Amino acid sequence: MPSTRFVDRLLARIAHVGSPTCIGLDPVVDRLPESIRTSSTSDAEAVEAFCIGVIDATAEHAAAFKPQSACFERLGSAGVAVLERVVAQAKANEVPVVLDAKRGDIGSTAEHYAKAVLAIGADSVTVNAYLGPSTIEPYLDAGLGVFVLVRTSNPDSDAVQSNELTTGGTVAELMAGLVSKSGQPRAGERGMSDVGAVVGLTKSADGQSLRKLMPGQIFLVPGYGAQGGCAEDLKPLLTESDIPGRGVLVNASRSVIYAEPEPGESWSAAVARAAKAMRDDLASVIG
Amino acid sequence: MPSTRFVDRLLARIAHVGSPTCIGLDPVVDRLPESIRTSSTSDAEAVEAFCIGVIDATAEHAAAFKPQSACFERLGSAGVAVLERVVAQAKANEVPVVLDAKRGDIGSTAEHYAKAVLAIGADSVTVNAYLGPSTIEPYLDAGLGVFVLVRTSNPDSDAVQSNELTTGGTVAELMAGLVSKSGQPRAGERGMSDVGAVVGLTKSADGQSLRKLMPGQIFLVPGYGAQGGCAEDLKPLLTESDIPGRGVLVNASRSVIYAEPEPGESWSAAVARAAKAMRDDLASVIG
Repeated sequence: MPSTRFVDRLLARIAHVGSPTCIGLDPVVDRLPESIRTSSTSDAEAVEAFCIGVIDATAEHAAAFKPQSACFERLGSAGVAVLERVVAQAKANEVPVVLDAKRGDIGSTAEHYAKAVLAIGADSVTVNAYLGPSTIEPYLDAGLGVFVLVRTSNPDSDAVQSNELTTGGTVAELMAGLVSKSGQPRAGERGMSDVGAVVGLTKSADGQSLRKLMPGQIFLVPGYGAQGGCAEDLKPLLTESDIPGRGVLVNASRSVIYAEPEPGESWSAAVARAAKAMRDDLASVIG
Repeated sequence: MPSTRFVDRLLARIAHVGSPTCIGLDPVVDRLPESIRTSSTSDAEAVEAFCIGVIDATAEHAAAFKPQSACFERLGSAGVAVLERVVAQAKANEVPVVLDAKRGDIGSTAEHYAKAVLAIGADSVTVNAYLGPSTIEPYLDAGLGVFVLVRTSNPDSDAVQSNELTTGGTVAELMAGLVSKSGQPRAGERGMSDVGAVVGLTKSADGQSLRKLMPGQIFLVPGYGAQGGCAEDLKPLLTESDIPGRGVLVNASRSVIYAEPEPGESWSAAVARAAKAMRDDLASVIG
Protein backbone atom coordinates (compact mmCIF):
# COMPACT_ATOMS: atom_id res chain seq x y z
CA MET A 1 0.00 0.00 0.00
CA PRO A 2 1.50 3.38 -0.96
CA SER A 3 2.17 5.90 1.83
CA THR A 4 -0.67 8.29 2.51
CA ARG A 5 1.64 11.00 3.86
CA PHE A 6 1.38 14.33 2.10
CA VAL A 7 5.11 14.47 1.44
CA ASP A 8 5.14 11.08 -0.24
CA ARG A 9 2.17 11.94 -2.44
CA LEU A 10 3.88 15.20 -3.40
CA LEU A 11 7.18 13.48 -4.22
CA ALA A 12 5.35 10.89 -6.31
CA ARG A 13 3.69 13.67 -8.27
CA ILE A 14 7.00 15.53 -8.77
CA ALA A 15 8.49 12.29 -10.09
CA HIS A 16 5.51 11.77 -12.41
CA VAL A 17 5.74 15.30 -13.86
CA GLY A 18 9.55 15.17 -13.91
CA SER A 19 9.83 18.66 -12.44
CA PRO A 20 8.95 20.40 -9.13
CA THR A 21 6.70 22.96 -10.83
CA CYS A 22 4.07 24.57 -8.62
CA ILE A 23 1.53 26.82 -10.29
CA GLY A 24 0.16 29.62 -8.14
CA LEU A 25 -3.50 30.50 -8.57
CA ASP A 26 -3.64 34.21 -7.71
CA PRO A 27 -6.71 35.35 -9.65
CA VAL A 28 -7.32 39.11 -9.78
CA VAL A 29 -10.39 40.20 -11.71
CA ASP A 30 -8.69 43.13 -13.48
CA ARG A 31 -6.11 40.81 -14.99
CA LEU A 32 -8.44 38.07 -16.27
CA PRO A 33 -8.83 37.50 -20.02
CA GLU A 34 -11.39 39.75 -21.67
CA SER A 35 -13.41 36.74 -22.85
CA ILE A 36 -13.83 35.49 -19.27
CA ARG A 37 -14.78 38.88 -17.89
CA THR A 38 -17.41 39.60 -20.52
CA SER A 39 -19.07 36.18 -20.20
CA SER A 40 -19.32 36.25 -16.38
CA THR A 41 -22.10 37.82 -14.36
CA SER A 42 -20.04 38.29 -11.18
CA ASP A 43 -16.43 38.57 -10.04
CA ALA A 44 -16.71 35.21 -8.27
CA GLU A 45 -17.98 33.53 -11.45
CA ALA A 46 -15.14 35.04 -13.50
CA VAL A 47 -12.52 33.90 -10.99
CA GLU A 48 -13.95 30.39 -10.99
CA ALA A 49 -14.05 30.09 -14.78
CA PHE A 50 -10.48 31.39 -15.02
CA CYS A 51 -9.04 29.07 -12.37
CA ILE A 52 -10.78 26.00 -13.78
CA GLY A 53 -9.39 26.96 -17.21
CA VAL A 54 -5.85 27.36 -15.82
CA ILE A 55 -6.02 24.02 -14.01
CA ASP A 56 -7.26 22.15 -17.07
CA ALA A 57 -4.61 23.81 -19.27
CA THR A 58 -1.64 23.19 -16.97
CA ALA A 59 -2.35 20.12 -14.81
CA GLU A 60 -0.10 17.84 -16.86
CA HIS A 61 2.90 20.10 -16.07
CA ALA A 62 1.98 20.77 -12.44
CA ALA A 63 3.49 18.97 -9.46
CA ALA A 64 1.20 21.11 -7.29
CA PHE A 65 -1.27 23.98 -7.45
CA LYS A 66 -1.03 26.76 -4.89
CA PRO A 67 -4.23 28.84 -4.62
CA GLN A 68 -3.69 32.17 -2.87
CA SER A 69 -6.44 32.21 -0.25
CA ALA A 70 -6.54 36.03 -0.09
CA CYS A 71 -7.59 36.29 -3.74
CA PHE A 72 -10.68 34.21 -2.99
CA GLU A 73 -11.40 35.60 0.48
CA ARG A 74 -11.57 39.13 -0.91
CA LEU A 75 -14.77 38.08 -2.70
CA GLY A 76 -16.39 37.16 0.64
CA SER A 77 -18.14 33.87 1.31
CA ALA A 78 -18.93 33.50 -2.41
CA GLY A 79 -15.18 33.57 -3.07
CA VAL A 80 -14.55 30.87 -0.48
CA ALA A 81 -17.18 28.70 -2.17
CA VAL A 82 -15.30 29.20 -5.46
CA LEU A 83 -12.05 28.21 -3.73
CA GLU A 84 -13.66 24.92 -2.64
CA ARG A 85 -14.62 24.13 -6.24
CA VAL A 86 -11.24 25.19 -7.63
CA VAL A 87 -9.44 22.90 -5.19
CA ALA A 88 -11.79 20.07 -6.13
CA GLN A 89 -10.87 20.57 -9.79
CA ALA A 90 -7.15 20.37 -8.99
CA LYS A 91 -7.73 17.16 -7.03
CA ALA A 92 -9.83 15.73 -9.87
CA ASN A 93 -6.68 16.19 -11.99
CA GLU A 94 -4.67 14.31 -9.32
CA VAL A 95 -2.54 17.35 -8.51
CA PRO A 96 -1.77 18.03 -4.81
CA VAL A 97 -2.90 21.41 -3.48
CA VAL A 98 -0.96 23.78 -1.21
CA LEU A 99 -3.37 26.35 0.23
CA ASP A 100 -1.37 29.55 0.56
CA ALA A 101 -3.14 30.95 3.60
CA LYS A 102 -0.21 31.76 5.92
CA ARG A 103 -2.28 30.83 8.94
CA GLY A 104 -0.72 31.14 12.36
CA ASP A 105 -2.55 30.44 15.57
CA ILE A 106 -2.28 28.13 18.50
CA GLY A 107 -3.98 25.25 20.29
CA SER A 108 -7.68 24.92 19.67
CA THR A 109 -7.69 27.80 17.17
CA ALA A 110 -5.08 26.09 15.02
CA GLU A 111 -7.25 22.97 15.15
CA HIS A 112 -10.11 25.03 13.73
CA TYR A 113 -7.86 26.29 10.94
CA ALA A 114 -6.82 22.72 10.19
CA LYS A 115 -10.51 21.81 9.83
CA ALA A 116 -10.94 24.86 7.60
CA VAL A 117 -8.16 23.63 5.29
CA LEU A 118 -9.83 20.22 5.19
CA ALA A 119 -13.20 21.86 4.46
CA ILE A 120 -11.62 23.60 1.47
CA GLY A 121 -10.14 20.28 0.39
CA ALA A 122 -6.42 21.17 0.25
CA ASP A 123 -3.60 18.74 1.09
CA SER A 124 -1.29 21.23 2.78
CA VAL A 125 -1.12 24.83 3.94
CA THR A 126 1.42 27.59 4.47
CA VAL A 127 1.86 28.42 8.18
CA ASN A 128 3.36 31.34 10.11
CA ALA A 129 5.02 30.09 13.32
CA TYR A 130 5.82 33.42 15.03
CA LEU A 131 3.59 32.19 17.87
CA GLY A 132 5.76 29.11 18.40
CA PRO A 133 5.98 25.46 17.34
CA SER A 134 2.49 24.67 18.67
CA THR A 135 1.13 26.53 15.63
CA ILE A 136 2.35 23.66 13.46
CA GLU A 137 1.22 20.45 15.16
CA PRO A 138 -2.58 20.66 14.72
CA TYR A 139 -2.28 20.64 10.93
CA LEU A 140 -0.05 17.57 11.03
CA ASP A 141 -2.40 15.81 13.43
CA ALA A 142 -5.19 16.44 10.90
CA GLY A 143 -3.17 14.66 8.20
CA LEU A 144 -2.10 17.81 6.34
CA GLY A 145 1.33 18.88 5.19
CA VAL A 146 2.62 22.32 6.16
CA PHE A 147 5.12 24.79 4.71
CA VAL A 148 6.34 27.06 7.47
CA LEU A 149 7.45 30.59 6.58
CA VAL A 150 11.19 30.76 7.21
CA ARG A 151 12.77 33.21 4.76
CA THR A 152 10.50 35.21 2.50
CA SER A 153 11.24 36.90 -0.80
CA ASN A 154 9.77 40.36 -0.10
CA PRO A 155 12.27 43.26 0.11
CA ASP A 156 11.51 44.21 3.73
CA SER A 157 11.60 40.68 5.19
CA ASP A 158 15.10 41.48 6.53
CA ALA A 159 13.52 43.82 9.12
CA VAL A 160 12.55 40.73 11.13
CA GLN A 161 14.18 37.65 9.60
CA SER A 162 17.82 38.84 9.25
CA ASN A 163 18.33 39.97 12.84
CA GLU A 164 21.18 38.15 14.60
CA LEU A 165 20.58 36.35 17.87
CA THR A 166 22.98 36.32 20.82
CA THR A 167 22.89 32.52 20.64
CA GLY A 168 24.14 32.64 17.02
CA GLY A 169 22.35 32.74 13.68
CA THR A 170 19.47 34.87 12.49
CA VAL A 171 15.76 34.86 13.33
CA ALA A 172 15.18 32.96 10.06
CA GLU A 173 17.76 30.37 11.10
CA LEU A 174 16.10 30.06 14.50
CA MET A 175 12.82 29.37 12.69
CA ALA A 176 14.61 26.85 10.47
CA GLY A 177 15.77 24.97 13.57
CA LEU A 178 12.23 24.85 14.99
CA VAL A 179 10.91 23.63 11.64
CA SER A 180 13.52 20.89 11.39
CA LYS A 181 12.77 19.71 14.92
CA SER A 182 8.98 19.69 14.37
CA GLY A 183 9.52 17.77 11.17
CA GLN A 184 11.67 14.96 12.52
CA PRO A 185 8.83 12.69 13.73
CA ARG A 186 6.90 13.36 10.52
CA ALA A 187 9.25 11.88 7.92
CA GLY A 188 7.99 9.84 5.00
CA GLU A 189 9.39 7.03 2.90
CA ARG A 190 12.18 9.09 1.36
CA GLY A 191 13.28 10.73 4.62
CA MET A 192 11.60 14.01 3.72
CA SER A 193 9.05 15.44 6.16
CA ASP A 194 5.43 16.54 6.05
CA VAL A 195 6.82 19.75 7.56
CA GLY A 196 8.26 21.86 4.73
CA ALA A 197 9.57 25.42 4.67
CA VAL A 198 8.97 28.54 2.59
CA VAL A 199 12.31 29.90 1.36
CA GLY A 200 12.22 32.73 -1.16
CA LEU A 201 14.29 32.37 -4.31
CA THR A 202 15.47 35.97 -4.16
CA LYS A 203 17.02 35.21 -0.74
CA SER A 204 19.00 32.27 -2.02
CA ALA A 205 22.23 33.79 -0.61
CA ASP A 206 20.91 32.36 2.68
CA GLY A 207 19.97 29.14 0.94
CA GLN A 208 22.98 27.02 1.72
CA SER A 209 22.80 27.62 5.47
CA LEU A 210 19.04 27.02 5.48
CA ARG A 211 19.44 23.76 3.56
CA LYS A 212 22.06 22.63 6.10
CA LEU A 213 19.66 23.42 8.96
CA MET A 214 16.71 21.76 7.20
CA PRO A 215 17.94 18.66 5.33
CA GLY A 216 14.54 16.94 5.62
CA GLN A 217 12.36 19.80 4.45
CA ILE A 218 10.81 20.36 1.06
CA PHE A 219 11.38 24.05 0.31
CA LEU A 220 8.39 25.79 -1.22
CA VAL A 221 10.20 28.44 -3.24
CA PRO A 222 8.30 31.52 -4.42
CA GLY A 223 10.02 34.16 -6.51
CA TYR A 224 10.48 32.35 -9.84
CA GLY A 225 9.35 34.30 -12.89
CA ALA A 226 7.60 37.61 -12.16
CA GLN A 227 9.57 38.16 -8.94
CA GLY A 228 12.90 37.92 -10.78
CA GLY A 229 14.35 34.56 -9.66
CA CYS A 230 15.62 32.04 -12.21
CA ALA A 231 16.28 28.30 -12.11
CA GLU A 232 20.03 28.85 -11.65
CA ASP A 233 19.32 30.59 -8.29
CA LEU A 234 17.87 27.32 -7.02
CA LYS A 235 21.21 25.54 -6.77
CA PRO A 236 22.06 26.45 -3.16
CA LEU A 237 18.62 25.19 -2.06
CA LEU A 238 18.82 21.70 -3.57
CA THR A 239 19.39 18.48 -1.70
CA GLU A 240 22.32 16.32 -2.79
CA SER A 241 20.23 13.20 -2.90
CA ASP A 242 18.06 11.47 -5.46
CA ILE A 243 14.87 12.91 -3.96
CA PRO A 244 12.44 13.81 -6.79
CA GLY A 245 12.71 17.56 -7.29
CA ARG A 246 15.82 17.55 -5.09
CA GLY A 247 13.91 18.93 -2.14
CA VAL A 248 12.27 21.95 -3.74
CA LEU A 249 8.81 22.86 -5.01
CA VAL A 250 9.15 26.02 -7.11
CA ASN A 251 6.20 28.34 -7.52
CA ALA A 252 5.32 30.80 -10.25
CA SER A 253 1.99 32.58 -10.36
CA ARG A 254 1.69 35.66 -12.52
CA SER A 255 4.31 34.70 -15.11
CA VAL A 256 2.30 31.56 -15.89
CA ILE A 257 -1.37 32.36 -15.33
CA TYR A 258 -1.19 35.76 -17.05
CA ALA A 259 1.10 34.64 -19.88
CA GLU A 260 0.69 36.88 -22.93
CA PRO A 261 -0.86 35.02 -25.92
CA GLU A 262 0.96 35.18 -29.23
CA PRO A 263 -1.04 36.34 -32.26
CA GLY A 264 -3.87 33.88 -32.84
CA GLU A 265 -3.18 31.96 -29.61
CA SER A 266 -5.92 31.53 -26.98
CA TRP A 267 -5.26 32.66 -23.40
CA SER A 268 -5.38 29.08 -22.15
CA ALA A 269 -2.89 27.90 -24.81
CA ALA A 270 -0.54 30.70 -23.70
CA VAL A 271 -0.89 29.61 -20.07
CA ALA A 272 -0.21 25.97 -21.01
CA ARG A 273 2.86 27.03 -22.99
CA ALA A 274 4.23 29.07 -20.04
CA ALA A 275 3.65 26.17 -17.64
CA LYS A 276 5.46 23.76 -19.96
CA ALA A 277 8.38 26.19 -20.38
CA MET A 278 8.69 26.46 -16.60
CA ARG A 279 8.47 22.69 -16.20
CA ASP A 280 11.25 22.21 -18.75
CA ASP A 281 13.44 25.02 -17.34
CA LEU A 282 13.28 23.54 -13.84
CA ALA A 283 13.84 20.00 -15.14
CA SER A 284 17.04 21.19 -16.86
CA VAL A 285 18.54 22.41 -13.56
CA ILE A 286 17.13 19.75 -11.24
CA GLY A 287 17.86 17.14 -13.85
CA MET B 1 -17.19 66.15 12.55
CA PRO B 2 -15.99 63.21 14.67
CA SER B 3 -12.84 61.39 13.54
CA THR B 4 -13.43 58.39 11.32
CA ARG B 5 -10.23 56.68 12.41
CA PHE B 6 -10.69 53.22 13.84
CA VAL B 7 -8.76 54.07 16.98
CA ASP B 8 -10.93 57.09 17.74
CA ARG B 9 -14.13 55.13 17.21
CA LEU B 10 -12.80 52.40 19.50
CA LEU B 11 -11.81 54.88 22.22
CA ALA B 12 -15.22 56.55 22.01
CA ARG B 13 -16.87 53.17 22.48
CA ILE B 14 -14.61 52.29 25.45
CA ALA B 15 -15.55 55.63 27.03
CA HIS B 16 -19.25 54.96 26.39
CA VAL B 17 -19.12 51.50 27.99
CA GLY B 18 -16.81 52.70 30.75
CA SER B 19 -14.56 49.65 30.38
CA PRO B 20 -12.23 48.19 27.72
CA THR B 21 -14.13 44.89 27.58
CA CYS B 22 -13.72 42.89 24.38
CA ILE B 23 -15.88 39.81 23.98
CA GLY B 24 -14.40 37.04 21.89
CA LEU B 25 -16.75 35.09 19.65
CA ASP B 26 -15.14 31.63 19.44
CA PRO B 27 -18.15 29.42 18.70
CA VAL B 28 -17.55 25.67 18.83
CA VAL B 29 -20.57 23.50 18.07
CA ASP B 30 -19.93 20.99 20.88
CA ARG B 31 -20.06 23.74 23.47
CA LEU B 32 -23.24 25.49 22.32
CA PRO B 33 -26.34 25.45 24.52
CA GLU B 34 -28.51 22.35 24.09
CA SER B 35 -31.50 24.48 23.05
CA ILE B 36 -29.55 26.01 20.16
CA ARG B 37 -28.17 22.69 18.97
CA THR B 38 -31.52 20.91 18.93
CA SER B 39 -33.32 23.72 17.10
CA SER B 40 -30.71 24.07 14.33
CA THR B 41 -30.57 22.04 11.15
CA SER B 42 -26.83 22.59 10.52
CA ASP B 43 -23.65 23.53 12.38
CA ALA B 44 -23.52 26.85 10.55
CA GLU B 45 -27.09 27.67 11.58
CA ALA B 46 -26.34 26.79 15.22
CA VAL B 47 -23.21 28.95 15.26
CA GLU B 48 -25.12 31.86 13.78
CA ALA B 49 -28.00 31.64 16.27
CA PHE B 50 -25.55 31.41 19.16
CA CYS B 51 -23.41 34.37 18.09
CA ILE B 52 -26.40 36.59 17.41
CA GLY B 53 -27.72 35.64 20.86
CA VAL B 54 -24.38 36.45 22.52
CA ILE B 55 -24.15 39.80 20.74
CA ASP B 56 -27.67 40.82 21.71
CA ALA B 57 -27.11 39.74 25.33
CA THR B 58 -23.75 41.47 25.80
CA ALA B 59 -23.55 44.47 23.42
CA GLU B 60 -24.22 47.02 26.16
CA HIS B 61 -21.13 45.83 28.06
CA ALA B 62 -18.90 45.40 25.00
CA ALA B 63 -16.32 47.92 23.83
CA ALA B 64 -15.59 45.51 20.98
CA PHE B 65 -16.42 42.07 19.67
CA LYS B 66 -13.63 39.82 18.44
CA PRO B 67 -14.85 36.98 16.23
CA GLN B 68 -12.29 34.19 15.84
CA SER B 69 -12.14 33.69 12.08
CA ALA B 70 -10.99 30.06 12.39
CA CYS B 71 -14.21 29.04 14.15
CA PHE B 72 -16.21 30.22 11.16
CA GLU B 73 -13.77 29.13 8.44
CA ARG B 74 -13.86 25.56 9.71
CA LEU B 75 -17.46 25.40 8.49
CA GLY B 76 -16.35 26.24 4.94
CA SER B 77 -17.93 28.95 2.81
CA ALA B 78 -21.21 28.59 4.74
CA GLY B 79 -19.29 29.52 7.89
CA VAL B 80 -17.81 32.59 6.24
CA ALA B 81 -21.32 33.67 5.22
CA VAL B 82 -22.34 33.30 8.90
CA LEU B 83 -19.34 35.41 9.92
CA GLU B 84 -20.51 38.20 7.61
CA ARG B 85 -23.95 38.21 9.27
CA VAL B 86 -22.51 38.00 12.80
CA VAL B 87 -20.27 41.01 12.12
CA ALA B 88 -23.26 42.91 10.71
CA GLN B 89 -25.17 42.22 13.93
CA ALA B 90 -22.30 43.60 16.04
CA LYS B 91 -22.18 46.71 13.88
CA ALA B 92 -25.97 47.11 14.14
CA ASN B 93 -25.38 47.30 17.89
CA GLU B 94 -22.73 50.01 17.29
CA VAL B 95 -19.92 47.84 18.63
CA PRO B 96 -16.57 47.90 16.75
CA VAL B 97 -15.35 44.54 15.46
CA VAL B 98 -11.81 43.14 15.61
CA LEU B 99 -11.53 40.20 13.21
CA ASP B 100 -9.12 37.77 14.83
CA ALA B 101 -7.64 36.32 11.68
CA LYS B 102 -3.89 36.71 12.29
CA ARG B 103 -3.30 37.36 8.62
CA GLY B 104 0.23 37.97 7.45
CA ASP B 105 1.18 38.52 3.85
CA ILE B 106 2.79 41.18 1.75
CA GLY B 107 2.17 43.64 -1.05
CA SER B 108 -0.70 42.80 -3.34
CA THR B 109 -1.68 39.74 -1.28
CA ALA B 110 -2.07 41.84 1.86
CA GLU B 111 -4.24 44.20 -0.19
CA HIS B 112 -6.47 41.23 -1.03
CA TYR B 113 -6.69 40.32 2.66
CA ALA B 114 -7.62 43.93 3.48
CA LYS B 115 -10.46 43.67 0.95
CA ALA B 116 -11.47 40.37 2.54
CA VAL B 117 -11.72 42.04 5.97
CA LEU B 118 -13.83 44.78 4.41
CA ALA B 119 -16.02 42.16 2.70
CA ILE B 120 -16.66 40.58 6.09
CA GLY B 121 -17.46 44.02 7.47
CA ALA B 122 -14.96 44.22 10.35
CA ASP B 123 -13.28 47.46 11.49
CA SER B 124 -9.88 45.98 12.30
CA VAL B 125 -7.89 42.77 12.10
CA THR B 126 -5.10 40.96 13.92
CA VAL B 127 -1.92 40.76 11.81
CA ASN B 128 1.26 38.68 11.95
CA ALA B 129 4.25 40.75 10.78
CA TYR B 130 6.95 38.04 10.61
CA LEU B 131 7.23 38.91 6.89
CA GLY B 132 8.09 42.53 7.71
CA PRO B 133 6.41 45.94 8.13
CA SER B 134 4.93 45.84 4.63
CA THR B 135 2.43 43.30 5.95
CA ILE B 136 0.79 46.10 7.96
CA GLU B 137 0.38 49.03 5.59
CA PRO B 138 -2.26 47.69 3.17
CA TYR B 139 -4.83 47.29 5.97
CA LEU B 140 -4.24 50.87 7.12
CA ASP B 141 -4.49 52.17 3.57
CA ALA B 142 -7.88 50.44 3.36
CA GLY B 143 -9.08 52.37 6.44
CA LEU B 144 -8.82 49.44 8.86
CA GLY B 145 -7.18 49.27 12.26
CA VAL B 146 -4.66 46.50 12.97
CA PHE B 147 -3.42 44.71 16.06
CA VAL B 148 0.02 43.25 15.34
CA LEU B 149 1.09 40.10 17.20
CA VAL B 150 3.97 41.12 19.47
CA ARG B 151 3.90 38.93 22.59
CA THR B 152 1.41 36.09 22.76
CA SER B 153 -0.02 34.28 25.76
CA ASN B 154 0.57 30.67 24.68
CA PRO B 155 3.12 28.68 26.69
CA ASP B 156 5.53 28.02 23.80
CA SER B 157 5.63 31.57 22.41
CA ASP B 158 9.03 32.00 24.11
CA ALA B 159 10.57 29.65 21.50
CA VAL B 160 10.52 32.55 19.04
CA GLN B 161 9.55 35.76 20.86
CA SER B 162 11.94 35.64 23.85
CA ASN B 163 15.17 35.17 21.94
CA GLU B 164 17.71 37.95 22.56
CA LEU B 165 19.17 39.90 19.63
CA THR B 166 22.80 41.01 19.35
CA THR B 167 21.51 44.56 18.93
CA GLY B 168 19.72 44.34 22.30
CA GLY B 169 16.24 43.30 23.32
CA THR B 170 14.17 40.30 22.34
CA VAL B 171 12.44 39.33 19.10
CA ALA B 172 9.16 40.55 20.67
CA GLU B 173 10.78 43.89 21.49
CA LEU B 174 12.09 44.14 17.93
CA MET B 175 8.52 43.60 16.72
CA ALA B 176 7.33 46.24 19.21
CA GLY B 177 9.75 48.75 17.69
CA LEU B 178 8.50 48.02 14.16
CA VAL B 179 4.91 48.37 15.34
CA SER B 180 5.57 51.70 17.05
CA LYS B 181 7.29 53.05 13.95
CA SER B 182 4.50 51.89 11.60
CA GLY B 183 1.97 53.47 13.95
CA GLN B 184 3.49 56.93 14.20
CA PRO B 185 1.93 58.41 11.05
CA ARG B 186 -1.41 56.80 11.95
CA ALA B 187 -2.24 58.56 15.22
CA GLY B 188 -5.73 59.75 16.03
CA GLU B 189 -7.17 62.58 18.13
CA ARG B 190 -5.90 61.22 21.45
CA GLY B 191 -2.41 60.40 20.25
CA MET B 192 -3.15 56.67 20.03
CA SER B 193 -2.60 54.89 16.73
CA ASP B 194 -4.64 52.79 14.32
CA VAL B 195 -1.74 50.34 14.71
CA GLY B 196 -2.25 48.40 17.94
CA ALA B 197 -0.44 45.38 19.38
CA VAL B 198 -1.41 41.98 20.75
CA VAL B 199 0.21 41.51 24.17
CA GLY B 200 -0.87 38.48 26.20
CA LEU B 201 -1.90 39.02 29.79
CA THR B 202 -0.01 35.95 30.99
CA LYS B 203 3.21 37.55 29.66
CA SER B 204 2.70 40.78 31.59
CA ALA B 205 6.18 40.45 33.14
CA ASP B 206 7.30 41.85 29.77
CA GLY B 207 4.51 44.41 29.86
CA GLN B 208 6.37 47.38 31.22
CA SER B 209 9.13 47.24 28.61
CA LEU B 210 6.59 46.71 25.83
CA ARG B 211 4.52 49.68 27.01
CA LYS B 212 7.65 51.84 27.02
CA LEU B 213 8.44 50.75 23.45
CA MET B 214 4.82 51.24 22.31
CA PRO B 215 3.35 54.30 24.08
CA GLY B 216 0.92 55.01 21.24
CA GLN B 217 -0.48 51.49 20.81
CA ILE B 218 -3.73 50.07 22.10
CA PHE B 219 -2.83 46.65 23.48
CA LEU B 220 -5.31 43.94 22.60
CA VAL B 221 -4.86 41.68 25.61
CA PRO B 222 -6.02 38.07 25.45
CA GLY B 223 -5.69 35.79 28.45
CA TYR B 224 -8.30 37.22 30.81
CA GLY B 225 -10.65 34.63 32.32
CA ALA B 226 -10.27 31.10 30.99
CA GLN B 227 -6.53 31.57 30.27
CA GLY B 228 -5.83 32.53 33.90
CA GLY B 229 -5.09 36.26 33.77
CA CYS B 230 -6.86 38.71 36.10
CA ALA B 231 -7.45 42.44 36.03
CA GLU B 232 -4.59 43.06 38.47
CA ASP B 233 -2.12 41.63 35.90
CA LEU B 234 -3.06 44.49 33.57
CA LYS B 235 -1.30 47.17 35.57
CA PRO B 236 2.11 47.01 33.82
CA LEU B 237 0.36 47.35 30.46
CA LEU B 238 -1.61 50.52 31.18
CA THR B 239 -0.83 54.00 29.90
CA GLU B 240 -0.41 56.73 32.50
CA SER B 241 -2.68 59.10 30.68
CA ASP B 242 -6.42 59.78 30.65
CA ILE B 243 -6.94 57.68 27.50
CA PRO B 244 -10.24 55.75 27.80
CA GLY B 245 -9.34 52.21 28.81
CA ARG B 246 -5.79 53.41 29.54
CA GLY B 247 -4.48 51.92 26.34
CA VAL B 248 -5.80 48.37 26.63
CA LEU B 249 -8.63 46.35 25.12
CA VAL B 250 -9.01 43.18 27.19
CA ASN B 251 -10.49 40.07 25.65
CA ALA B 252 -12.30 37.14 27.18
CA SER B 253 -13.97 34.48 25.08
CA ARG B 254 -14.84 31.17 26.75
CA SER B 255 -15.31 32.53 30.29
CA VAL B 256 -18.06 34.82 28.96
CA ILE B 257 -19.74 33.08 26.05
CA TYR B 258 -19.88 29.67 27.76
CA ALA B 259 -20.81 31.04 31.21
CA GLU B 260 -22.61 28.39 33.29
CA PRO B 261 -26.27 29.33 33.96
CA GLU B 262 -27.46 29.30 37.55
CA PRO B 263 -30.57 27.23 38.31
CA GLY B 264 -33.48 28.67 36.38
CA GLU B 265 -31.28 31.10 34.43
CA SER B 266 -31.25 31.06 30.60
CA TRP B 267 -27.92 30.66 28.78
CA SER B 268 -28.15 34.16 27.39
CA ALA B 269 -28.82 35.66 30.84
CA ALA B 270 -25.72 33.82 32.14
CA VAL B 271 -23.65 35.22 29.26
CA ALA B 272 -24.95 38.75 29.92
CA ARG B 273 -24.10 38.38 33.63
CA ALA B 274 -20.55 37.21 32.86
CA ALA B 275 -20.04 40.09 30.44
CA LYS B 276 -21.26 42.61 33.03
CA ALA B 277 -19.00 41.10 35.71
CA MET B 278 -16.01 41.40 33.38
CA ARG B 279 -16.95 44.97 32.49
CA ASP B 280 -17.17 45.90 36.18
CA ASP B 281 -13.96 44.05 37.13
CA LEU B 282 -11.96 45.86 34.44
CA ALA B 283 -13.58 49.20 35.30
CA SER B 284 -12.45 48.79 38.92
CA VAL B 285 -8.79 48.47 37.90
CA ILE B 286 -8.76 50.90 34.97
CA GLY B 287 -11.02 53.30 36.89
